Amino acid sequence: MLSESLVKEFKSIVGDDNVFNAEADRQSYSYDSAVLEPVVPALVVRPTNSEELGKVIALCNENNNPITVRGAGTNLSGGTIPDKRDGIVILTNGMNKILEINEEDLYAVVQPGVVTAKFAAEVAKRGLFYPPDPGSQAVSTIGGNVAENAGGLRGLKYGVTKDYVMGLDFFDVNGELVKTGSRTVKCVTGYNLAGLMAASEGTLGVFNEIILKLTPPPAASKAMMAVFDDVNKASAAVAGIIASHVVPCTLEFIDQACMRYIEDYTKAGLPVEAAAILLIEVDGHPAQVEDEAATVVKVLEKIGASRIQVAKDAAEKLKLWEARRNALPSLARARPTTVLEDATVPRSQIPAMVAAINNIAKKHNVQIGTFGHAGDGNLHPTIMCDKRDTKEFHRVEEAVDEIFDTALSLKGTLSGEHGIGMAKSKWMEKETSRATIDYSLNMKKAIDPKNILNPGKIIAGR
Amino acid sequence: MLSESLVKEFKSIVGDDNVFNAEADRQSYSYDSAVLEPVVPALVVRPTNSEELGKVIALCNENNNPITVRGAGTNLSGGTIPDKRDGIVILTNGMNKILEINEEDLYAVVQPGVVTAKFAAEVAKRGLFYPPDPGSQAVSTIGGNVAENAGGLRGLKYGVTKDYVMGLDFFDVNGELVKTGSRTVKCVTGYNLAGLMAASEGTLGVFNEIILKLTPPPAASKAMMAVFDDVNKASAAVAGIIASHVVPCTLEFIDQACMRYIEDYTKAGLPVEAAAILLIEVDGHPAQVEDEAATVVKVLEKIGASRIQVAKDAAEKLKLWEARRNALPSLARARPTTVLEDATVPRSQIPAMVAAINNIAKKHNVQIGTFGHAGDGNLHPTIMCDKRDTKEFHRVEEAVDEIFDTALSLKGTLSGEHGIGMAKSKWMEKETSRATIDYSLNMKKAIDPKNILNPGKIIAGR
Repeated sequence: MLSESLVKEFKSIVGDDNVFNAEADRQSYSYDSAVLEPVVPALVVRPTNSEELGKVIALCNENNNPITVRGAGTNLSGGTIPDKRDGIVILTNGMNKILEINEEDLYAVVQPGVVTAKFAAEVAKRGLFYPPDPGSQAVSTIGGNVAENAGGLRGLKYGVTKDYVMGLDFFDVNGELVKTGSRTVKCVTGYNLAGLMAASEGTLGVFNEIILKLTPPPAASKAMMAVFDDVNKASAAVAGIIASHVVPCTLEFIDQACMRYIEDYTKAGLPVEAAAILLIEVDGHPAQVEDEAATVVKVLEKIGASRIQVAKDAAEKLKLWEARRNALPSLARARPTTVLEDATVPRSQIPAMVAAINNIAKKHNVQIGTFGHAGDGNLHPTIMCDKRDTKEFHRVEEAVDEIFDTALSLKGTLSGEHGIGMAKSKWMEKETSRATIDYSLNMKKAIDPKNILNPGKIIAGR
Repeated sequence: MLSESLVKEFKSIVGDDNVFNAEADRQSYSYDSAVLEPVVPALVVRPTNSEELGKVIALCNENNNPITVRGAGTNLSGGTIPDKRDGIVILTNGMNKILEINEEDLYAVVQPGVVTAKFAAEVAKRGLFYPPDPGSQAVSTIGGNVAENAGGLRGLKYGVTKDYVMGLDFFDVNGELVKTGSRTVKCVTGYNLAGLMAASEGTLGVFNEIILKLTPPPAASKAMMAVFDDVNKASAAVAGIIASHVVPCTLEFIDQACMRYIEDYTKAGLPVEAAAILLIEVDGHPAQVEDEAATVVKVLEKIGASRIQVAKDAAEKLKLWEARRNALPSLARARPTTVLEDATVPRSQIPAMVAAINNIAKKHNVQIGTFGHAGDGNLHPTIMCDKRDTKEFHRVEEAVDEIFDTALSLKGTLSGEHGIGMAKSKWMEKETSRATIDYSLNMKKAIDPKNILNPGKIIAGR
């Protein structure tokens, strides 16, 4: 519990209306989109400008109150779950201004609370393009995207959030402003702290302003669905497309289990009898799009797709992608608990990974639907279960362990885009080394001696 | 001076043939390509495998010998100048193996001593593409490129070295291996230490293996030279091309002074009567190349280029680029000392920056030739002088100060691609903030408590 006088101090910084200490308010910020125990924060504070934000941070540090910064809370690894020691949630939705869109120099400057899809739309209005498109983009924020280094469907060709962060300034734990990167496309002035901030999950600083790279948009695109009677053929097609030197902007995989849930939910007319489908989009210059689409069709035919449906128009294309975007909500309806993983492997290992996931599901008697960014090797095996059924959930945990072990044995990684947060911290050393954890811990301790900045995430208590 | 017994210990790790302690040998590693005072190292050591490298680092740390890792010593900011306190140079040319080129998954794994151009050629043999092309690529090493986050001519469209580092492992100061990133295109397992290592100039760890991203190569390209009778028109054309939504792979600027030196040296037939030229290359799908080249020509005509020469074949194209690649050596011949800067501005500020550089040259009575990556806003104003003429060199230093001030006032940066090293450390705070220096210092101290890893670079003694 915070003292009355401390609550008053927060109110004097951000105003009475931007401090929430009612039980019901605090409950709302006790969880995020990961399957983890909620923790109710001691207070929720909503600064509306840089000055307020800096002061709030300094006050938290002075009083040893751990800070968890929260955008939309859509992260899937517990990165926005507050700390038990009178944790304070700082909301970013009071700092949601697009400060500059520079059309000549192809960059934008935004506050952390700007909603991703809104930002992308504003950029599009000016004839430009912000490629990163995490699944939660309709509500997720740029600050959260940078903190988690969010991926998305276009990662294969366009990269992930960190590839668009040209610079940022952030508050250190004392509320002082640190500046890194630049409005220039090249900058090597000092350490690449902007790079370090990406995926740091709020543990090393609190973002104030973010400079994002923009690009001209692709002039044309073409989407298609390929249907397979055998999962192995679908995954072989993924490797085959890349090997043909076509880099689609999107290359998504959905297996039968997953398709059936989506179809139940959306009635999109998906080929539910098939073993798996790929959704593929190529983009760029119109002639390039034609050539690449033809190459993709050739690969798909050679590998033995049972059907290839090229979207005739924008409406058909939209429908295909809507089905994909509904994958997670469709699966989430099936059972009370949805454990969504994002173990990732080099693309050529997709066939091995898909086969392993199916074996793991059988072995541990759990329900797994798999979809995801196959072109990135970034699958989302999703386990539908009921956490209250402790026996089942124990099997789920064993299955997850084995999924991670398999990914690592295929030279992959624990997490392609969801982050480590609280959920995967215990596996970190397995992928990296003890020295990696120590190096990270030393760095964290030096930057945040009192462990105030989102404690318990990434390298929690090790 | 090192003790005999310590030299013996180094010999026992790497073998007698890989320890150099003769005066003449040590002298050879006392300087790099920056205009700074040389410092002779106490010893030069050449490990030939990971195990040796780890042991050498641990031994240096135990004995408080500062480590400066050296690839080809081509950096331009003093990053490879050894430390005065019995500094030890670790050569990477004994670790120059390409360990893997994975054609299916579009990545390669290399040791730090691999020469950039050799690596790019090996990749090209397999029908793939490694885009970063720093000016010194014929001799520079991948390790050095990552440590400096080297840029190059293709930065505009393809990014810089850090954009191709998927992961790496490096030795911490105790000689323990830290692992970051992955062979997968997406990875958010732990802190983005691979990002932090880029541009860290050897101050945070010693690279062991580097995982690099590869891409399919562009199918076609077209190069042209545009000649201008007015510098302002040339720089306006740079902004105009980007505003037309064409992103050339290369967009280089050479002013008259610079052209004359190149012509003296190369007899390439450059239009030395012109005020400036742009060298432009677009690449990609053949149809895209045609369209983009046509758009560029239209912009150039509208802005009033006095001549546009499109390279008819590969030989003509090569000749154009050879002239550009000879810019620095040509200038370096003119006077005993060449001060090559890389202050960088947002592209739209190129006209203002070019005008300011010319005024600064007049005001301080110094000779400046300017060339560089105009498409990135990354110019190389190059001051030709004689360091032994203390009066002249004082004017040079004043001019450099003013160039930096101008770049910052145009929302630019001190260094686009050459790094801070020892040369620009004193200007760091001006661009960033005191808190940025403190944040970086705290981090450095935690990672390297005895200040053994390339001390005196970036945030030197502040």
